[in-house]
Amino acid sequence: MEYKPDEQIMKEAIKMAYLARGEGDYAIGALTVRDGEIFTLGENKVKIDNDPTAHAEIVAIRKATQITSSRHLEGVVLYSTHEPCPMCTSAAIWAKMDGIISGTYIEDMADYRKSHPSSQWLWRTIDVHPKYLIDNTEENLFLIRGFMRDECLKLFHSTQ
Amino acid sequence: MEYKPDEQIMKEAIKMAYLARGEGDYAIGALTVRDGEIFTLGENKVKIDNDPTAHAEIVAIRKATQITSSRHLEGVVLYSTHEPCPMCTSAAIWAKMDGIISGTYIEDMADYRKSHPSSQWLWRTIDVHPKYLIDNTEENLFLIRGFMRDECLKLFHSTQ
Repeated sequence: MEYKPDEQIMKEAIKMAYLARGEGDYAIGALTVRDGEIFTLGENKVKIDNDPTAHAEIVAIRKATQITSSRHLEGVVLYSTHEPCPMCTSAAIWAKMDGIISGTYIEDMADYRKSHPSSQWLWRTIDVHPKYLIDNTEENLFLIRGFMRDECLKLFHSTQ
Repeated sequence: MEYKPDEQIMKEAIKMAYLARGEGDYAIGALTVRDGEIFTLGENKVKIDNDPTAHAEIVAIRKATQITSSRHLEGVVLYSTHEPCPMCTSAAIWAKMDGIISGTYIEDMADYRKSHPSSQWLWRTIDVHPKYLIDNTEENLFLIRGFMRDECLKLFHSTQ
């Protein structure tokens, strides 16, 4: 069955991104969805918490596993305003999540970084796609990338 | 300058692996080193904490960034008894660590999994090497793999 991503749900992820931005961090938001409903929210907290692992996706995934008291999240889907980095994709793989829906492409982050060299917001990237990682596992997460990309692209300008 | 890995330090990582095993988790240990001295210790807590992100390396890195109140760990080196997965390698990249020294190869984990199909310890792998990730960034962490591999290989049998 093909998964149909939900615009209202991605809008909530975008709200989390603006929340992170308001708190002084990168405008990146994520959330987990279970049974079609938002399960946990995650905002990027890398700068706020001085924690390089506190990407929005990791925040949302850790909350979900703490609530369920299980390190596995079968049936749970990850939304992110930005295509997940290898750290976050790997966390979703380890957690046996069903799939990942994301907004901007990793290339968008790299392009923004290159076109704004004097920005204090570096938008560093690890240029390895979620598909490459999943293809090198025995897991089979679905991937939908570029969902509501235009709306998510606006988040770069919110951190200028 | 070539980095010289330290056997005594790796022995402490191996101790952390046995500690994790004693607590009911995978026998994987890691630690961070600053100025030649052990800075933070990490044992694998994935099962203990129901947290798919609580790999030994992430535990050690997060402790280090909390102590320094900085998400960057320039001058800090990561030791792990097992070659880090893409999640942990990415965390080290995001943290701008100097390098990674590891014991067993990712291939050793995959081989163990395949040769012990009935084990309750799955040793799942994401078959993407640290070098591939680092080569796809602007960072330049050094990598030493297979350091004290024979001693670290014994850890698989501790979790039979």
